[in-house]
Amino acid sequence: MAQGRPLSYNRPVTAKYLLDESQIPTSWLNLLPDLPGEPLPPLSPATGEPAGPDDLAAIFPMGLIEQEVSAEPEIEIPEEVREVYRLWRPTPLYRARRLERELDTPAHIYYKYEGVSPAGSHKPNTAVAQAYYNKQEGVRKLATETGAGQWGSALALACRMFGLECEVFMVGISYDQKPYRRAMIETWGGTVHRSPSELTDAGRSQATHPTGSLGIAISEAVEVAAGSEDTNYSLGSVLNHVCLHQTVVGQESIAALELVGEYPDVVVGCVGGGSNFAGLAYPFVRANIREGKRTRFLAAEPAACPTLTRGAYAYDFGDTVGMTPLMPMYTLGHDFVPPPVHAGGLRYHGDAPSLCALVKEGIVEATAVPQTAAFEAAVRFASCEGIIPGPEPAHAIKAALDEAEAAKQAGEERVILLGLSGHGHFDMAAYAAYHGGELEDLEFSEAEMRAALERLPEAPAIA
Amino acid sequence: MAQGRPLSYNRPVTAKYLLDESQIPTSWLNLLPDLPGEPLPPLSPATGEPAGPDDLAAIFPMGLIEQEVSAEPEIEIPEEVREVYRLWRPTPLYRARRLERELDTPAHIYYKYEGVSPAGSHKPNTAVAQAYYNKQEGVRKLATETGAGQWGSALALACRMFGLECEVFMVGISYDQKPYRRAMIETWGGTVHRSPSELTDAGRSQATHPTGSLGIAISEAVEVAAGSEDTNYSLGSVLNHVCLHQTVVGQESIAALELVGEYPDVVVGCVGGGSNFAGLAYPFVRANIREGKRTRFLAAEPAACPTLTRGAYAYDFGDTVGMTPLMPMYTLGHDFVPPPVHAGGLRYHGDAPSLCALVKEGIVEATAVPQTAAFEAAVRFASCEGIIPGPEPAHAIKAALDEAEAAKQAGEERVILLGLSGHGHFDMAAYAAYHGGELEDLEFSEAEMRAALERLPEAPAIA
Repeated sequence: MAQGRPLSYNRPVTAKYLLDESQIPTSWLNLLPDLPGEPLPPLSPATGEPAGPDDLAAIFPMGLIEQEVSAEPEIEIPEEVREVYRLWRPTPLYRARRLERELDTPAHIYYKYEGVSPAGSHKPNTAVAQAYYNKQEGVRKLATETGAGQWGSALALACRMFGLECEVFMVGISYDQKPYRRAMIETWGGTVHRSPSELTDAGRSQATHPTGSLGIAISEAVEVAAGSEDTNYSLGSVLNHVCLHQTVVGQESIAALELVGEYPDVVVGCVGGGSNFAGLAYPFVRANIREGKRTRFLAAEPAACPTLTRGAYAYDFGDTVGMTPLMPMYTLGHDFVPPPVHAGGLRYHGDAPSLCALVKEGIVEATAVPQTAAFEAAVRFASCEGIIPGPEPAHAIKAALDEAEAAKQAGEERVILLGLSGHGHFDMAAYAAYHGGELEDLEFSEAEMRAALERLPEAPAIA
Repeated sequence: MAQGRPLSYNRPVTAKYLLDESQIPTSWLNLLPDLPGEPLPPLSPATGEPAGPDDLAAIFPMGLIEQEVSAEPEIEIPEEVREVYRLWRPTPLYRARRLERELDTPAHIYYKYEGVSPAGSHKPNTAVAQAYYNKQEGVRKLATETGAGQWGSALALACRMFGLECEVFMVGISYDQKPYRRAMIETWGGTVHRSPSELTDAGRSQATHPTGSLGIAISEAVEVAAGSEDTNYSLGSVLNHVCLHQTVVGQESIAALELVGEYPDVVVGCVGGGSNFAGLAYPFVRANIREGKRTRFLAAEPAACPTLTRGAYAYDFGDTVGMTPLMPMYTLGHDFVPPPVHAGGLRYHGDAPSLCALVKEGIVEATAVPQTAAFEAAVRFASCEGIIPGPEPAHAIKAALDEAEAAKQAGEERVILLGLSGHGHFDMAAYAAYHGGELEDLEFSEAEMRAALERLPEAPAIA
């Protein structure tokens, strides 16, 4: 451990590389036009035909729908959005010097830390943009779902900044067990409903499932949005426009690394719905495609919900109950219920179609990390770097530690860029379980997944 | 509220002013030689004579004892300490532009945000320094007490960085009710004992008080330190060397404000034991004394524990049970038990002697803030600036809002510097109580305080 030799290393050493607010990116980077292969459109669940803007107009503003299907390689960030970004962006890029010493690795480990946002994660990057476009089009309220509360709190913050109401349907069991994220949402003026609620048909129909589920909560939020003229729905990952908004992370990373004179040999991030990974990696992916860079990309997912490493590549619903368009992606089946892992943000049956296409093409590698290994890596990270990581990026940290060990074995000075998407201040119960020896590597049910895959909707096969 | 007009204000506008790591202060600022009036020494509780270094040598390293009594105006910060500071320092200085618009005030409100430290508050500024000097003198372990856990977690972090063990006696009721700070301490390798414990005479003697108290926890930690060659004790506020270490905050504030070309008309901070306030204000206080600056200083304390506004100025013990030297300070009586306020860090019967001397001289003003008013101000702040403040700085925010209103009434463009000493991520239960209408302004018991003051120890009166 680092304990024995903190007073003896070379110095001085810069720990973090900061950009000025004027260097907040002025445009988002849209990878869609650069994606290899034929584009696979989403399909309408009703007709099986490609879904168009009209299929989304009831719940999304046109500004976001245009981004969802845009072929423009860059999309300008409105000045009003950049001004809210100024409250925490640019985020710091750290060189993990203490961790490198602890690992005794020749690798240079950098981490981009998104935990400095008021909500504590990368989520506000898209929440602020979504609130802005909705406000521009006269929407009064946004409805959404939240599991552990990370996305709900980010959207509440964003709505507060633009004067929108925010209504959050929170999975019942989380509502009962995690009152602190709920208090955070309320502090930013949001309203939280325990889901299933009495407020919607979807909720009332599920009264026999009092603990709720993300699928039920999505259905409630979409119902509220679809049934009201001035209310829209907001989603925190998976969709193209969400991945787009997150690319400020990767663009800032490129700018900060240029200051240092380094470029990553490998980019490592965690994947739940894919937007965190996309935001960090896509600017570098485009550099691979356009400029012939040879960076490797490593997506870390939980072993208990191994979408990219073990799912089927097929058209499937984005939600559990089958209301969304069919999307081409790796999936464990839309009604697959992953075992409860503490990294609530990584429990999703599918992944962003753009990311899945990159995995399919072999441009992005995927690895599945057991949760005890993730927490072990997170505690080691915290011992050296101070910051206590969220359980989600803990999976990426484990993968980055393995990359650093590989560099050591190879005797190569590789540059690793790690996405530290958020802090763990609201996840200390999971750390307590880890310290108490109560954290288990939950069994991934092969049989259950196979059964879920047999219930995939009818749709054209994709190769 | 700010809701109605976020899209219309002038832009672009810088939100935060950042310094480079090379601008982390190279020395701490010692206000002792500049304090007005005759210095009042601490007194030995045994002899009533001035307490010397020997009275402290059993539990503190000589490096810190020298700082405690130093007459040097600056004390160099060891490079090893500055290197740990690099993990989060310099901290950002924000211009609260959204809050100013919300208040429609001509005041310029700046806030120095210490919540970016891994522990989430200013506490690591001294914890790191204390761990360093103990390590230098061959100490193996530090023992301390903690109430809500803020200080305990900061010391655990610091010990981890320098390879020391850390043993924290946590007030029993907090240990039971606040497991998350405990998990944080354990994540950084610290050991947490529920106090009263079976490990010390002090603890065993208090077994009939199972909920514990800060006084009992201090006694246990001091006993562990005094009874072991290689273990020392560590205190998170009140003492001169603790205030000293915190002056990096004020020094960075001066440097960042110079970038902007502003200088504060008033500096506002919260006071528990006084080190947070001292760290922010003392560099500016010295500029008043030496350079004839005319900044006002405003110390915000909880109305439920009004040490500076209603205490007696007298010699009193620093702890509850009477083991420490007698210190000259405003006090509510060493065995006064303040009502439970959510701002756990502000529940102390006395205050740093140096700060008390400044209040006595009229250089620092004090104001008492009821906790519901503090939370109301904090929620308003979070609605504009995003960051959710800790309950302690919430008291300072309320005072700053009043100053901004006064500037508006006077029609003057006053510059307000606010100390935002930490975030509220571990205090969301208090916010939940506020949102639920369950937060009360606890009665300050005048009779109880009078009785406590009658139990002040025998000592020379001070004017």
